[in-house]
Amino acid sequence: MGVSFDKILVVGIGLIGGSILKTIKELNLSFEVYGVDQNEEVTTHAHNLGLIKNRSNDLEKINEDCLIIFSVPSLSFEEAFKLVNNCVNKEKVIFTDTFSSKSNLLDFLERNPEVKQRFVMSHPIVGSEKSSISNSVPFLFRDKLVILSPVEATSKKENLTKLKNFWEVIGSKVSLLAPEEHDKLFSKTSHLPHVIAYALMNFLEKELGKKVFYYSGGSLESYTRIASSDPLMWKDIMVSNKGEILDAIKGFKSSLKEISELMESGDEKSILEFLRIVKETRDRLVEKDD
Amino acid sequence: MGVSFDKILVVGIGLIGGSILKTIKELNLSFEVYGVDQNEEVTTHAHNLGLIKNRSNDLEKINEDCLIIFSVPSLSFEEAFKLVNNCVNKEKVIFTDTFSSKSNLLDFLERNPEVKQRFVMSHPIVGSEKSSISNSVPFLFRDKLVILSPVEATSKKENLTKLKNFWEVIGSKVSLLAPEEHDKLFSKTSHLPHVIAYALMNFLEKELGKKVFYYSGGSLESYTRIASSDPLMWKDIMVSNKGEILDAIKGFKSSLKEISELMESGDEKSILEFLRIVKETRDRLVEKDD
Repeated sequence: MGVSFDKILVVGIGLIGGSILKTIKELNLSFEVYGVDQNEEVTTHAHNLGLIKNRSNDLEKINEDCLIIFSVPSLSFEEAFKLVNNCVNKEKVIFTDTFSSKSNLLDFLERNPEVKQRFVMSHPIVGSEKSSISNSVPFLFRDKLVILSPVEATSKKENLTKLKNFWEVIGSKVSLLAPEEHDKLFSKTSHLPHVIAYALMNFLEKELGKKVFYYSGGSLESYTRIASSDPLMWKDIMVSNKGEILDAIKGFKSSLKEISELMESGDEKSILEFLRIVKETRDRLVEKDD
Repeated sequence: MGVSFDKILVVGIGLIGGSILKTIKELNLSFEVYGVDQNEEVTTHAHNLGLIKNRSNDLEKINEDCLIIFSVPSLSFEEAFKLVNNCVNKEKVIFTDTFSSKSNLLDFLERNPEVKQRFVMSHPIVGSEKSSISNSVPFLFRDKLVILSPVEATSKKENLTKLKNFWEVIGSKVSLLAPEEHDKLFSKTSHLPHVIAYALMNFLEKELGKKVFYYSGGSLESYTRIASSDPLMWKDIMVSNKGEILDAIKGFKSSLKEISELMESGDEKSILEFLRIVKETRDRLVEKDD
């Protein structure tokens, strides 16, 4: 087993899966590449674009050293797993995913230890409100962070190394985070902002109808952009990471209450101080991050 | 009185005021241009940049047809007004502002009818988290919307026409909205998103400290950008438009409650339907707006 894979199988050819395939093609990487999608027309379309070897979802048994990437909505994982379960030699594969929420996958792996020991989780941070293969692009992952979460302490370290190499070849930077830690963190930094954007957009549409964007000069469009994210993907995240997200909403509401009470008090000095501290801390954090 | 002004006096040389001055200079417009700032060093700096004729805040009496633009934080208006009150011939000027919230100004004008009849409100929609003259740029207003709000039905229509011409020469598109309507609308489309961004950022900083942006891949930076807005300007907006903003927060919280309850129920079909409707309505509105 080298530091690379012989084959790549992408399960779910949407924005992420399609972009992985297009990047491999653009970089002219030497993997033998396969792909399947629940919608078999998408599989054929990917074949016709020259992205994958197979034309349909019927795969021959894969006996070589293979990376299998599940890039489907997270609650479709079990169904997607069944699509490929019979056509791979489990001794020779490494499984990974691209999910924004890991808890349902983690449950599945607890019930399926033979899969668990071959699984290293991935989460490429390439947020977009776009979905489907038609929006996929080569080099989507260039200089983007991919978070790897090993789930089996006893699994071979070389699995992790090979997966890390794969994402780096694709152009990403890799960072490690335990799955539970991942879900806790992203409930705050990503899932909460999405819930807020959906809630804000829902409120504005009901209040203002067609006037929502008319006077906003583009900034509200950009602020609510993520409320146009894929509903299926985000329904899955909200269901899968429900507990953490509800906690995050609760914390955010306390913070909103803090500002509301300051406003109600009319205490200008305290309002100014609150805003100043938030701004200064944010500016400092953003600067450090550059 | 022609369709243009002889003189322009900018009161408050920050991001907006500075950008107006720089645009006038870049376009080589034939106004005689003056400016004052509470911080007299800024006035001198603007003079040294060749943006204004005067070197200090001591202005000679302006007897010509003049547009006076107040581009200060909205609660500093009365103080700013005093700066110029004695050096202009009120019969010959038109006053305007650049405020995001109009209610305090409206109160002042009710108390000062001789100013009111010379006042047409402006609000250039050029949101930025940046402030100060050092961030001002020429052509900030190009293709941007400026909302004009006439406050005196009896005031001459030509005042409105002249102000409209001015903003159009500067490169903007002009739209009309009554001041009360303006504050009601912007409490929802602009002030509420800012309050949300400040509250979110405050929550995230307290929860995650230095880790806030580490795993976000840039999208959280952009989502919280407006929490780095000028604290003084936004304190003034929160104080000045308090009632409308608190109403907007209330409406948003109902919407947030709606999603939270859907999540708690675990009813996947209803969550999906909620997200789908928000997305489809938003996509339709954005498309129409293009």
